Amino acid sequence: MKLKGFIHCFVFAFFGLLQQSVQGRPLLMSAPRPWRDDTATFARWLVSQSSWGVLSTISGEWGGAPFGNVMSFSDGLPDEGRGIPYFYLTTLDPTARNALEDQRASFTLSEYNLGSCGKEDPEDPSCAKITIVGKLHQLEGNPDEDEFARTALFTKHPAMKWWPKGHDFQIFKLDVENIFLINWYGGAKPITAEQYLNADMSEIASVTR
Amino acid sequence: MKLKGFIHCFVFAFFGLLQQSVQGRPLLMSAPRPWRDDTATFARWLVSQSSWGVLSTISGEWGGAPFGNVMSFSDGLPDEGRGIPYFYLTTLDPTARNALEDQRASFTLSEYNLGSCGKEDPEDPSCAKITIVGKLHQLEGNPDEDEFARTALFTKHPAMKWWPKGHDFQIFKLDVENIFLINWYGGAKPITAEQYLNADMSEIASVTR
Repeated sequence: MKLKGFIHCFVFAFFGLLQQSVQGRPLLMSAPRPWRDDTATFARWLVSQSSWGVLSTISGEWGGAPFGNVMSFSDGLPDEGRGIPYFYLTTLDPTARNALEDQRASFTLSEYNLGSCGKEDPEDPSCAKITIVGKLHQLEGNPDEDEFARTALFTKHPAMKWWPKGHDFQIFKLDVENIFLINWYGGAKPITAEQYLNADMSEIASVTR
Repeated sequence: MKLKGFIHCFVFAFFGLLQQSVQGRPLLMSAPRPWRDDTATFARWLVSQSSWGVLSTISGEWGGAPFGNVMSFSDGLPDEGRGIPYFYLTTLDPTARNALEDQRASFTLSEYNLGSCGKEDPEDPSCAKITIVGKLHQLEGNPDEDEFARTALFTKHPAMKWWPKGHDFQIFKLDVENIFLINWYGGAKPITAEQYLNADMSEIASVTR
């Protein structure tokens, strides 16, 4: 127990130090960066630690162009994410309108936002990036998932609770079909949606709790 | 002249203070944030100050899905941007392959990356975001523009000079057709590509030089 306590103390101190600024960018992550070859765990970590990204849909209004839009999201309570991105969208914004016409979508995140890329260029492969390709649709008919998603969103983005009622924001979900992950040199890592959704997150959890 | 000197001194001191961290996020901008109702100038400022974003193309490999990808870019030397995003792409990456098949694309940036959104949620309309919709294609047959774009990219992203020659990186350009800008409450601001490309940047330039 003493050794375990010492290790926990060391780990917390280490990540406390990591929270300091690197190249002027603050580290925003709450759980340690997994080893890059633990591909599925790494992908889930990147999604879980992030709070926003770019959600791309097909724009009927602009000739079928791929339309990226900055969106806040959540995949669960902090460090308890399930890997599925949930959004709080209104049809006053083109993204929700697009998805209701054509569900094809992708959601793109950069590790650069977490502050853990150091001085590397955001496009350098050592600065991880992920794109989740799938179908974007309104969440309906599942009260348990609705409750999970609502708590996930409102915990990570408290301001959402106060977004105007009159704008009729609804919870949307991106069903995960394909994963494009780069977290080192050598091209995208092969990873299936099933591997991603069933990734072992226990190693990370044991450090952060 | 004394008054002008005093004003310049005050402006520099003010923006020097602004360079301090807001909510732990460092301010990365080198020119002052324009007034939000100077829409075209504001849009150009946001693009010029940014160094990366998400470039979305149509993925033939994934059923025509809109595919967002994290990309570094430049629209010119620091504070001398022309508003046209240039990229350095290789067909080893899906984005360049997609564009060679279908030029429809968009490029999305968030002010959140500049550190000037304070404590606001990244999706709050007071934290500006822009999407440039247009056609993405390889830059060919224009030595002057090629030289401009190459200098723009390599100055903002010095690492690009050392990217592997064997990957055959080429300069791509996003022709600006439509602009989606949100920088305050009330929905997207009406702004044409022509207004954007011809925006008056003199006020910003006079402060930063």
